[in-house]
Amino acid sequence: MALRIYGDSISGNCLKVKWTAEHLGKPFEWIETSVLNAETRTPEFLALNPAGQVPLLLLDDGRPLAQSNAIILRLAEGSSLIPGDAYDRAKMLEWMFWEQYSHEPYVAVARFQMLYLGKPRESLDVRLVERGGQALARLETQLRQTPFLVGEQLTLADVALVAYTRVAHEGGFDLSLYPAVEAWVRRTEAALGII
Amino acid sequence: MALRIYGDSISGNCLKVKWTAEHLGKPFEWIETSVLNAETRTPEFLALNPAGQVPLLLLDDGRPLAQSNAIILRLAEGSSLIPGDAYDRAKMLEWMFWEQYSHEPYVAVARFQMLYLGKPRESLDVRLVERGGQALARLETQLRQTPFLVGEQLTLADVALVAYTRVAHEGGFDLSLYPAVEAWVRRTEAALGII
Repeated sequence: MALRIYGDSISGNCLKVKWTAEHLGKPFEWIETSVLNAETRTPEFLALNPAGQVPLLLLDDGRPLAQSNAIILRLAEGSSLIPGDAYDRAKMLEWMFWEQYSHEPYVAVARFQMLYLGKPRESLDVRLVERGGQALARLETQLRQTPFLVGEQLTLADVALVAYTRVAHEGGFDLSLYPAVEAWVRRTEAALGII
Repeated sequence: MALRIYGDSISGNCLKVKWTAEHLGKPFEWIETSVLNAETRTPEFLALNPAGQVPLLLLDDGRPLAQSNAIILRLAEGSSLIPGDAYDRAKMLEWMFWEQYSHEPYVAVARFQMLYLGKPRESLDVRLVERGGQALARLETQLRQTPFLVGEQLTLADVALVAYTRVAHEGGFDLSLYPAVEAWVRRTEAALGII
């Protein structure tokens, strides 16, 4: 059995997994699973992932794995997307945990509320706007120093963080205020072939 | 130079790092750094961690590393706290990313607001209460099946998740509703020697 990826195409977290598998040349079956239609809450899906979240990877042997960043770490083991140097690898993980705690909950949630729930920018919780802006500023600080987040080479940190940064404008964030981020988005999209 | 850990003793995220270093017998210097007193926002601290967060590890050579789970992964490399089996290692990472996204923002934040900001339980955002309860229920489901989160052995998933689960009552959560979680807290505290 090939890899099976349960994912929702509107979710950056799910696209991370798709891009990583494609970049590594790993064949997979994509099973479109809509969050908005509650397809992650059916008894069948909850049996695979009790957390009721996509993305979900089923390995060749059928064992399930959840959490986008855990999945791409598994898929990319032994590849150049994970640095061989212990410090660089640790910094990659630092960015990936930071992404889920300090970036996605603001940048992705602002986008979701505007694009899929139809909320106007002015009605968003001020925390989403402020902390999303802080997250983009934090990326800008790093990307003025290095072409990718952990230095000269594309790593999973870039895959994880580009997913929602490239669509941050859909959450009302103006990426032209962060020129190094904007250039890095283009660079990472090109490296991943997702333009 | 020995390892230096900048941490706030009231923060479970910081205690994870302390417990891991102690469990592994790695000597370190602990530099108490108060979040409430904004000691993470001084120019000196921001030069070490532009994200302005503790814990922060300074390696032997002075290079900084942030994010609690990235730090403990670095400290524990090559130890029994990280499973050798690829699938078990991936499941450990799944729990660690889930902790930062679906557990800490509710269980730890409810505790912080009650214990340090003096908010009564009734005044907490209903999302904190609901999603914190869901996170504890998700742990209960797993811990009815296995003694530790990834099976028979203590891993970093247990270290990461016990940090705020063991003090969940300080955020108004009643752990007696989750007996397998309560037994696992005692088991993990004993394994780490933190009773």
